[in-house]
Amino acid sequence: MASEFWQGDVAELLRVDETFDLSAVDPSSTPGTTANKKGGQAELAASAQELRELQERLFAQSRAGAPERVLVVLQAMDAAGKGGIVNHVFAQLEPHGLQLTAFKSPTEEERAHDFLWRIAPRVPGPGVIGLFDRSHYEDVLIQRVREFASAEEIERRYGAITEFERGLAADGVRIVKIMLHVSPEEQAQRLSDRLADPAKHWKYNPGDVDERQLWPEYMDAFQIAIERTSTPDAPWYVVPANAKWYARVAVQRLVIQALQGIDPQWPDADFDVAAEQARLAATADLRWP
Amino acid sequence: MASEFWQGDVAELLRVDETFDLSAVDPSSTPGTTANKKGGQAELAASAQELRELQERLFAQSRAGAPERVLVVLQAMDAAGKGGIVNHVFAQLEPHGLQLTAFKSPTEEERAHDFLWRIAPRVPGPGVIGLFDRSHYEDVLIQRVREFASAEEIERRYGAITEFERGLAADGVRIVKIMLHVSPEEQAQRLSDRLADPAKHWKYNPGDVDERQLWPEYMDAFQIAIERTSTPDAPWYVVPANAKWYARVAVQRLVIQALQGIDPQWPDADFDVAAEQARLAATADLRWP
Repeated sequence: MASEFWQGDVAELLRVDETFDLSAVDPSSTPGTTANKKGGQAELAASAQELRELQERLFAQSRAGAPERVLVVLQAMDAAGKGGIVNHVFAQLEPHGLQLTAFKSPTEEERAHDFLWRIAPRVPGPGVIGLFDRSHYEDVLIQRVREFASAEEIERRYGAITEFERGLAADGVRIVKIMLHVSPEEQAQRLSDRLADPAKHWKYNPGDVDERQLWPEYMDAFQIAIERTSTPDAPWYVVPANAKWYARVAVQRLVIQALQGIDPQWPDADFDVAAEQARLAATADLRWP
Repeated sequence: MASEFWQGDVAELLRVDETFDLSAVDPSSTPGTTANKKGGQAELAASAQELRELQERLFAQSRAGAPERVLVVLQAMDAAGKGGIVNHVFAQLEPHGLQLTAFKSPTEEERAHDFLWRIAPRVPGPGVIGLFDRSHYEDVLIQRVREFASAEEIERRYGAITEFERGLAADGVRIVKIMLHVSPEEQAQRLSDRLADPAKHWKYNPGDVDERQLWPEYMDAFQIAIERTSTPDAPWYVVPANAKWYARVAVQRLVIQALQGIDPQWPDADFDVAAEQARLAATADLRWP
């Protein structure tokens, strides 16, 4: 089911490598496609079936003991479009095979533990696609910028994260880490739109402007975190996100490619099909009432 | 947004009352509509937006402290279409505001506790729509039919359930309990279809035929459970489910009506909108890199 939409391998184009420089990524670009918004929306709808079938196979094979699962980590500045990714891409998945976790500011109890304490229990089980809407990367992003943790502790965390993710990969977790990258101009427009619409006020938080004022510090923190934690087992992808339609199709394709990498298969029946057909046939006369 | 599709109030038509007799419900009937499959599929798609907007309002108002939430309990014989309800109705909802729990056979740890021990933690929080795919009703259905618990214990549970649900309702949980009602002939066809398709073998369980052989006993258990636990706060609805399209639009409409009963409202901003617009405007020159 090759797509006409993509002129290049979006995973290759967006995956971070050793030469990664966040400041060189244009948030308005659309790597891998020359389509426009209308084409993007059509592609998003057209690929839903492919995504769902791969998900169903992944879920099905786990019932027979296959360990594979997918974990998507989503990080971004406020108003970069995480919510839209959830509601337009992940909403295409079957709910039973999707586990979504939105990580908020840590509670008092969570702060009393190591930063990975609240993360580990939310890793998806076999057959499931997990999405972290924010994640353990907050602990090296906002916590670095705001100096909620010491420089030594932040430094320690990069290593702890790569160790943690290496263990997940060894257990069959395919990890896809995504930064949605918007420009400060685009963010300003989106926050302004939220303030202009009473039905969107609940999405606005005065803290969003506080963090916005630290934009360069956040971009530094992203650059360093991405450099330090991109591994073959747990690569980062930076997705230009000024065009919402592009971010959505790109993330959809990254998830599809992760599933294709697993190549899940319908499991063999663990029962005798002919015998079951006979047992079922023997109840054919059942009527009620 | 009145629907042309419905000629009657589906909640009124399907809600169980004092005269409830399960054997009088025709699993092939389509109460409230004269439409066919094509019309049903169109209605399902057309009402998705109404459902999502109500859900978003429910979620939004909870951010400002409103306690309301919805709990849908789904019970049925095997192959009655629970999976289709999840994938075609609940999949229309935004993932962040949906909490789905599939209750399996209780684990050893769960069996060592009261039957509600594993249920209570899965009740949705404010603003969330929860779905129980199977539920505490298994404890008075299969457990009654299979005599996994004593008659006295089963008897006790009806009262414990109504007390439990009364407490939930008092906390703002709007409870919608749904039995999908198929005929044994229709179940046989669906199980046969699963056996005929290798891509569906993973959905088949030899135990399905074991339980099928106890159809009258299960129908008795449903009749009694529904009689004993239908309350104004936590009504049961019996949804004819031989026509999948009908079951889906009926459940969709029951969820929409539950949300309309809450009548969720966009919350007022808890910040000074003009002041925030000014703070944002002061960052308008921000550029990066």
